[in-house]
Parts: sequence; structure tokens; C-alpha cells
Amino acid sequence: MNFKENLVLIEQTEKELTVMQGILGLLEWDQLTYMPKNAVQDKSDQLTWLTTKYHEKTISNELWRAVKKVIKDKNFSKLSDWKKTEIKRFYLDLKKARKLPKEFVEKLSQETTIAYSNWAQAKQKSNFKLFQKNLENLINLKKQQAKYYSGKNTYDALLDDFEEGMTSKKLDKIFNALEPKLVVLSKKIKSSEVFKKQKTLEVQMTREKQKKFLENLSSKINEVNSSRLDETVHPFTISIGLKDTRITTSYDKGFLNALEAVIHENGHALYCLQVNEKFKNTCLHSSPSLGIDESQSRFWENMISKHKIFLKAIYPEVQKESENKFSFENFYFEVNKINNSLIRVNSNEIDYCLHIILRYRLEKAMLENKLKVQDLPKAWNELSLKYFGRKPSNDAEGCLQDVHFANGAFGYFPTYALGTIYAVQLFNAMQKTISVENEISKLNFNKIKKWLYDKVHSKGRTLSANEIMLKATGKEIDIKSYVDYLTKKYSAIYEIK
Amino acid sequence: MNFKENLVLIEQTEKELTVMQGILGLLEWDQLTYMPKNAVQDKSDQLTWLTTKYHEKTISNELWRAVKKVIKDKNFSKLSDWKKTEIKRFYLDLKKARKLPKEFVEKLSQETTIAYSNWAQAKQKSNFKLFQKNLENLINLKKQQAKYYSGKNTYDALLDDFEEGMTSKKLDKIFNALEPKLVVLSKKIKSSEVFKKQKTLEVQMTREKQKKFLENLSSKINEVNSSRLDETVHPFTISIGLKDTRITTSYDKGFLNALEAVIHENGHALYCLQVNEKFKNTCLHSSPSLGIDESQSRFWENMISKHKIFLKAIYPEVQKESENKFSFENFYFEVNKINNSLIRVNSNEIDYCLHIILRYRLEKAMLENKLKVQDLPKAWNELSLKYFGRKPSNDAEGCLQDVHFANGAFGYFPTYALGTIYAVQLFNAMQKTISVENEISKLNFNKIKKWLYDKVHSKGRTLSANEIMLKATGKEIDIKSYVDYLTKKYSAIYEIK
Repeated sequence: MNFKENLVLIEQTEKELTVMQGILGLLEWDQLTYMPKNAVQDKSDQLTWLTTKYHEKTISNELWRAVKKVIKDKNFSKLSDWKKTEIKRFYLDLKKARKLPKEFVEKLSQETTIAYSNWAQAKQKSNFKLFQKNLENLINLKKQQAKYYSGKNTYDALLDDFEEGMTSKKLDKIFNALEPKLVVLSKKIKSSEVFKKQKTLEVQMTREKQKKFLENLSSKINEVNSSRLDETVHPFTISIGLKDTRITTSYDKGFLNALEAVIHENGHALYCLQVNEKFKNTCLHSSPSLGIDESQSRFWENMISKHKIFLKAIYPEVQKESENKFSFENFYFEVNKINNSLIRVNSNEIDYCLHIILRYRLEKAMLENKLKVQDLPKAWNELSLKYFGRKPSNDAEGCLQDVHFANGAFGYFPTYALGTIYAVQLFNAMQKTISVENEISKLNFNKIKKWLYDKVHSKGRTLSANEIMLKATGKEIDIKSYVDYLTKKYSAIYEIK
Repeated sequence: MNFKENLVLIEQTEKELTVMQGILGLLEWDQLTYMPKNAVQDKSDQLTWLTTKYHEKTISNELWRAVKKVIKDKNFSKLSDWKKTEIKRFYLDLKKARKLPKEFVEKLSQETTIAYSNWAQAKQKSNFKLFQKNLENLINLKKQQAKYYSGKNTYDALLDDFEEGMTSKKLDKIFNALEPKLVVLSKKIKSSEVFKKQKTLEVQMTREKQKKFLENLSSKINEVNSSRLDETVHPFTISIGLKDTRITTSYDKGFLNALEAVIHENGHALYCLQVNEKFKNTCLHSSPSLGIDESQSRFWENMISKHKIFLKAIYPEVQKESENKFSFENFYFEVNKINNSLIRVNSNEIDYCLHIILRYRLEKAMLENKLKVQDLPKAWNELSLKYFGRKPSNDAEGCLQDVHFANGAFGYFPTYALGTIYAVQLFNAMQKTISVENEISKLNFNKIKKWLYDKVHSKGRTLSANEIMLKATGKEIDIKSYVDYLTKKYSAIYEIK
């Protein structure tokens, strides 16, 4: 095949992969939203079939030959810049996918299915022993996977799947700097008078009113005709097509939980829907890393929806629709309250990154043979004591709380912290050109969305996470501005000098 | 490949085709229920991709060779009876699919897409001229398709896609016998005193109460954990997996319309969910014809839900939930009222088959060059006058009312009449072994469902439509019992001697 024909094959394959991703998205969405209970096996068959097709397409030798030939061809240099970036990016994706033997991919898939099931049982019974053997198997498989990827550092090889360009050396530096500052801040807050006297405010609102309020709020962030808001136990965002990104929330834990989840997921959805359309049906129509992904959800959750001005803007409507009365001051405090939860997903802005650092240190230690799997609960509990001043009362509240290990997603957790830090940087940078607070007060997000489009969304995968942050904010990652933000905000709320 | 290997290839392919059908079902369901408006192109890309994959798989030469080899192999006779039936059935399916060249399938698909769009516009503007050229093209393509299938009768070749084993000769005999009897009965009713005095009863019920009532009713017919009831403009049933069949209805036209639709669709769904599980993932896990399919929906719609005893059983609850008061007699009469509509889908038990006969005569005449497409409106209007005593006021009420021609579904309409007639036969036969009315009075359908399973559902595609009817009722098709049923029922309601 000549240059042109190979190029056509590449482009057609990228489109086919996009279409398959969309269908996989729909299957997953259906599984979690509207699927009848008895259809578990049907859905599993459908997902397995399509996942296999997707993998087969990715590792096709014909495709691989075409990509290699195109890159080496003298005509390659004549392609537009972004087209060259696309082909090179696709080359790297395929190269990585091809490193894992088919049998290994199947074995890992089988092991995570069993591990997930045993983790769920172990968590329910709060007994780590029921999951220990699975975790050992997964750790061994993941070490094997890292070997397939490269000879270098195991953790870095796995981290690369989620945060390309990041290394454990950089993470150590970031987390070592962050850890003491957050521990001190957390302790200060938790020994403050305000903390000791704090109470819980529940915003009582019917399910229907929550739904209506949050659908209306979503419509201010995302195009309603390209999105949906459905209900699931755990909130998520899923892209099903270029103009089809769906989010979910739960209304069971009350309005404030649903508000936080819906705004967070809208941040993800806006990113999905705002990637430059020029890149559609190519491997560039995505994000460069999960950290950048998370920066978008955290931006809307932490920087917008917990902002005093935002809360002031929605307070009258919230008060009108809720069944109980409360002052704005109590409303603002409740949203930003520092709780004492040992559960990451119920955590707060101060403790959140400590939860991540804890997981990072332990998963890395296990992968580097510095911590035996059987000793995980003990190590977890000790770090918990160090960071939060107390140990979990059982494994379910401790090392079994999150699903990530059972999914084999080692190297995933750090992206949550990176996204959280990036969000502050983006907010600060945005304020230099837009009067953000003025916009928030009007609940008009157009300028904010435009800024995020220009600096992040429009780039797709043409830039790395570091490049995006550097161009948008002047720094790759900025611990200081993050700690300053937390210190300033929470010193005021908790009246700390 | 040896016998065993070929058999494995066949079975794997049948399973793959089943999985693909399920995913196609989900894509179609999503398109009509929850898809965001802007996702039209995404969904179209996804459907096109998967439809193409499905077709490619069906016409694969490797598969074709395997099926032919297995049937000729000396080991074939050692397979179980149903396994032999399965392979032979699959052979016939593939043989038929392979008769249409790929280019022809694509051309037909393109033409129906355009035809559908122009039909929708033509119907909106009530102007047949806007659709005439598309209909001419489709008629020509369909003649071509019939030629690909065989050299014989064009109409029969197309009919075979929907009602295997049926011929226009048989249909002519059935419809020629039915037509005068129905015309006479319809005229008698419409000149009766009761008809002249009849009024309209609207059962007023909120959307939420309709939904709740009909979900509860559905749960008496189908397993709730294997089905769903959603809302769409036009009601439909779709199978997405072995334990996943979904139905839809509209609540906009009021409770009585929704009741009729939901019961009808539950009949289809029960069939899908009750096919013998032994046949799962094979070509036998389906129905032998659309006529048998429709017999199931019509059974529940006409024979159960319009039955005096059923209506008596639900009347108290309907009366309780509705906003207006009405007597049981008025309720029963409204459900079974003979209206004067010229629109098939709004029709009644007496006129329904006349609507079908009208379409059958005209589509057959066009395909046999006995009626020019340009003369369709005139011919339609004349038959309408003959059957219903009046002509449509415009093309939208006449020859443009149904979508089937625009879909290229010539030979489809007769299956509606066949199913309607079969339903009466099945009900009569069932009464010989079950006290059906006693069961209906208790709204307990278990014995009825078991009978339908034994006689129809459990057979899958192992028997033809004729064989099923003959075994279940003693006759292939029985016009007399159908006319007797209508005459007896409606003579009583309309007080005709």
C-alpha cells in the first residue's frame, strides 16, 4: 500500500476505534442506569465481545505496518502539524498496546474480575484476609505488566498508563513537600474552637426538586441537547459520542452531596464536549492524562461550587426549594466544613490529598517489595494515625474502602491529587484575564468555559499535561499556590491565625 | 478444518451474531428513548458500523464453507434433532443473505434513508407527489431484490422475508374470503342505532398514575427484572438480550391508548423472554414469522385486554385512579367501540383487517406492474370508499399514513392480519384445556403464559408458522372462527340481529 492508502487505513481505523469506544460507553452507561437486573450475563457478553474486537483492532499487524510506513515516508513531513502529531501519538499508543501479549491481557482481565468480586465481599465483611490472595496476584501481574512495558521502575511504568510523563521521583518531591503542610493544617483546624463547636446542617429537599435544580444548574455548564443527567449509586461521567456525554448522580445522600457530584461530573462532561472538533474521530480527541481530566472536575467542584460567591448566588433558590430554613452563613460553612472522615470520598479539601498520599506510599511500597501485602492493613492504619490522628475502626473503613486496587489500577490515585492541585493553578491564572468572581455571581459561565476551552479543552491530546499547565499557568505544578489557597480559605473559616 | 472445528466455528458465529443483535437493539432503544438530541450523527455512525459488521459476518465465505461441510459430513446425522434443525436453518438464512450483492444492500439502505425523509415531509405536507419518485425507485429496487432471491413471483419472494412459507395465492384466498364478510359487518355496525348514538369516553388519569398502573399490569405478564417500560412517541418492543426485553408506550393520548399499547407490547415481550432457553445464542432463538410474532401481541391486546372479564377485573382500580367517573358499561363499550377512523393504527377490531387487505392489494398491484405508482392515491381512495364508505380527505390520511412503504417493507402488512386471525384461534384452542376466563378474572396469567410457552414460545424457530398453528389449534389458519368471533362479539355490543 502507498502513503495515501496507508493514511486512509489509519484514519478509518481511528474512526472505527472512536465508534467502538462510543458503543462501549453506551453499554457501560446502560449497565449502571437502566439495564434490567437479570441482564447481567447479556451485558457481560456484549462488553466482552466489543472489548475483544477493540483490542484486536488496536494490535492489528496491518495497521502497525501502515503507521510505521507512514511515519518513515518522505511525504510525512508535508502533513499539517496536528496531523503529524496525531500519527505520532497513534504510533505511541499502538506501540504500547502491542507490548502486552494477548494471553496476559486475558489473564489480567480474569484476575481483576475475581479480585473485584472478592474485594466486594471482603469489604462487606470488613475482612482483608478474604482479599489478600487476590491482591497478591494482582501485584504480581502488575509487576509483570511493568516489565512488558519497559525494564525501568515498576511504579513509573504503571503510572504512565494514567499520567503520561509523570514519575515517582517527581511525585515523591511533590508529596513530600505537601504532606507536612497538610498534616499541620489539618491538625490546626481540628483543634480549633470552631471545629469543636461545628454542627451538621442538612439541606432537606425532595428528590424531584433536587433533580430539577441540578438539571437547571447543569444546563448552565453544558449543552442540554448533548448531555443527560441520570441517577446511579455512584456518580460518573461517560462519553458516548462527540455530542453525547452523560453524567449521573445519586439523590439519596441529600442535596449537598448531589450538588457536589453534579458539579464535579459537569466539569468532566464539559471537557469531553469541548475538545476541539477538529480532532474528532482521531486519537487526539481526548485528554493527555487523568490528572488533567480531574483538574476540570475539581475546578468546578472546589473552585466554583464551594466558592462563597457561587453559594451566595444559588442560596435564595436553594432556600426556596428546601424544606428547612438555614442562614447563608450556615449554608456556606456546611459546604466547606472540614469533617473527620477516614473515607476518601467523604473527605474534605484539607484531608483529600493526604488520603491520596497514603495510598500512593502504600501501593508503591507493595510494588517495590518494601511492603508485604499481608501487612497492608497495619501500614494503612499507621499512616492514618499519622495523617488524621486516628486509625480506622476496621478494614472496610481502612484499606478496603476503595475499589482501585481490586481493579488493578495501581498508579491511578496520584492523578486525583494532581488534578486537585492543577484546579487551583487554573483558577488563579484565569483570574488574571477574567473577573471570575463577577461571572460566578451572575451564574454565567461563558467566559470561564471559553478560557478553559482556549487553555485546556481545545488542545485535546496535542500537548502533554505538563505543557498544558505550563502554558496555561506558567508552572507545571505549583504546590505553594495550592497550600496558600487552602491556608487562606480555611484559616478564615476556622478562625486560625 | 474437521467436522468438530467447523461446528465450533458455526456455534461461535451464531453467538457472536446474537451478541451483535443485542447491541444493535440497545443502540436503537437508546436512539428512541434517552439519547441527547445532538447525538444523531454519533448514533448513526454507531449503527452503521455495527450493521456492516453484522452483514460481513453473515456473508463470510469461511462460515459458508463450514456450514456446507458440516451438513454434508457423515457425522451430521449423529447430532441431536434440534441441533440438525439449527444448522439447516442457519444454512438457509445464510444462503438467503448471500443472494444479495453488497452493493445492492448499500444502495437499498441509501434509498430507504432518503425515501423515509421524503415520506415524512410528504406526509407533513400531505402531498404524495413529494414521495412518488422515491416510491418508484423503491418498487424497482424491490423487484430487483425479488429477482436476486429467485426467479419466481415478485410478491412471494418479498413476503418470504416476513412470513416464510406464505404465498400470495394463499393470501388471496384468505383475503378474498374475509373482505366481503368484514365489509358487510362493518356496514351493519355503522348503520346501527347504537353506533349512531355512540359517544366518546375519555379516561382521565395523570401521567404518573398511568405509568404506575401499567407498570403494575406489565409485572403480571412479564418478569420485571428482565424488562422495562419506557416512554416514546410510538410504542415498540425490542430485545436486547436473553433476559432483557424492553417495551415503550406514550401517555400523551390518554390511559386507554396507553393500556392498549402496553398490553400489546407485553405480548411481544413475553414471546421474546419465553423462547426456549435451550436455543439461546442460536438462530432458533427467535420466531418463525412476523405473523406468529403479531399473534402474541394481538392475543394480549384483543383477546385479553378487550375482554369483558379483564375489563371488569381492572375497572375498580382504573376508576379509583382516574379523575372522572364512568360506569363499567361505558368503560367496556369505549374500549371495544367501533370508530370510523381511516387511520389503521387508530382503527378497531372490525376494520383492522380491511386496512391490511387494502394495503396488500395495492402494494402487490404496484410490484406486479398492474398499478402505476402515480395512481396509488386514487386507487387507495377508491378502496377506502369501498371498505369504509368514505375517501380520505387528503394523502396524509390516505396512502401516506404508514411508514412501511418508505422503509421498503413490501410484504410486511399481511402479517398484521395473519397475527390478528391467529390470536383468535389460539384463544379458542386455549379455552379447551384452561378455564381462561376464570384466570383472567383473577388477573393471574400463569396458566395462560404456560400454555403459550408450550404451544408457541418454546418452539423457537424449530417449526414453521403453519406447523405451530396446526399443532396448537388444529388448523393452519381459520377465517371462519375469526369472523364468528367478531360477529358474535360485536353483534352483542351493537345490538345487531
